[in-house]
Amino acid sequence: MSAYTYARVHHDGRDDDVAVEEPLEIRVDGRPLVVTMRTPGHDEELALGFLYGEGLIEGPRAAGPTEDFAANTVEVEGPLARDPGERRFYTTSSCGVCGKGALEEVAVHSRPLSAGPLVDRELLAVLPDRLVQPAFERTGGVHATGLFGASGELLLAREDVGRHNAMDKVIGRALLDGLVPLAGRILCVSGRLSFELVQKAAVAGAPILVGVGAPSSLAISLADDRGMTLCGFARRGSINVYTHPERAVTG
Amino acid sequence: MSAYTYARVHHDGRDDDVAVEEPLEIRVDGRPLVVTMRTPGHDEELALGFLYGEGLIEGPRAAGPTEDFAANTVEVEGPLARDPGERRFYTTSSCGVCGKGALEEVAVHSRPLSAGPLVDRELLAVLPDRLVQPAFERTGGVHATGLFGASGELLLAREDVGRHNAMDKVIGRALLDGLVPLAGRILCVSGRLSFELVQKAAVAGAPILVGVGAPSSLAISLADDRGMTLCGFARRGSINVYTHPERAVTG
Repeated sequence: MSAYTYARVHHDGRDDDVAVEEPLEIRVDGRPLVVTMRTPGHDEELALGFLYGEGLIEGPRAAGPTEDFAANTVEVEGPLARDPGERRFYTTSSCGVCGKGALEEVAVHSRPLSAGPLVDRELLAVLPDRLVQPAFERTGGVHATGLFGASGELLLAREDVGRHNAMDKVIGRALLDGLVPLAGRILCVSGRLSFELVQKAAVAGAPILVGVGAPSSLAISLADDRGMTLCGFARRGSINVYTHPERAVTG
Repeated sequence: MSAYTYARVHHDGRDDDVAVEEPLEIRVDGRPLVVTMRTPGHDEELALGFLYGEGLIEGPRAAGPTEDFAANTVEVEGPLARDPGERRFYTTSSCGVCGKGALEEVAVHSRPLSAGPLVDRELLAVLPDRLVQPAFERTGGVHATGLFGASGELLLAREDVGRHNAMDKVIGRALLDGLVPLAGRILCVSGRLSFELVQKAAVAGAPILVGVGAPSSLAISLADDRGMTLCGFARRGSINVYTHPERAVTG
């Protein structure tokens, strides 16, 4: 986290820090692919994590900033594993637009998850407390994702105004460090559990995903389908285990 | 909110309600335009509010469900006000991808905001408490947006797993009820204040936007630029007023 993560604002007669939000354009071989609103910093990780979650790359790539005055573009080396023009997760084919179609699409791009780790429920419940969140403490305006080992040790954490970006940055860093697929490890997010977060975790091979907030119906369906242990409402030493509770053991 | 807003799940030896998340495809004159993950219900409002915020329609339109087995498509009557193919808010032109470009794009699609209303700070601070959130109370998994009159009376509220969707649904309903532009009224959201939420509120003409959470830097920049009163951290009777405090008066 750099100074550019925060901006100083003046309001109500005092100064305060807020989280910076800026657009980032991801380019592949010079071709603009997508723009996301994010907190600056770890942009290469964000780009790689995003592309991996979309099935557009299958391993780490060279990535770096493009020369532009606002430093809001990142360039990734191609070629891509598939044509980015084709819409993937939601089709308009005869199957209709439905959750079932979305689940099947994710299945194409993800492998079976590791059988372990087996982790004590009480340990899972306190993982959010171990999620280092300096930008949140300063601004109250960012989400966090952390990658944990099976013993509950924090391996890396990222913060961003966009919750999907925080997850992408962690997965991008893990890719660069040779940790993907995330077999035997745990992902933990500071907020709610949506379909898209479960999708990203599944494609990255994380067998356990813990969230402080509530899961959606489709997040539960996808986790169930992919064999992932999905845990929500991890707060005050308590936790709900919605799917595949065999990895969440008691005492 | 219908029964389909909630799904019953079994976990940890008990039954629980979670918020439903399903894809919705928005079509215009039969042509698929975009897919969003949303909580079912008020789909026509969602489609109209989304299209309005993007500058694709300039008033209410006929909209309704398309026949499909999952009821996850909504059809809107065309034609559109501009070509949806052209990317609007973020360009890759010589200006680069920067917050400044994003601000200028919003300016094109929004009119000056009303000078009023003048609202007591203490009233603004308690608006979130008046935001009816039945789905949140039941699931803990949805965001809410409310439209309030100048005296703090709740005019309408919507909930959704996606915070942008909740805002789109409120604006779509207001469009159908002839309330847009939202001159003299207040929008209130249950979460954080991102660039995109300020953008939607600005295009709909809301002079005041209140959030329970923190604003981002670009949300503040956009609100300042558009002349909007942006208030954050509205909780426990307190509030921060980040921009244009002239509408937030003290007793």
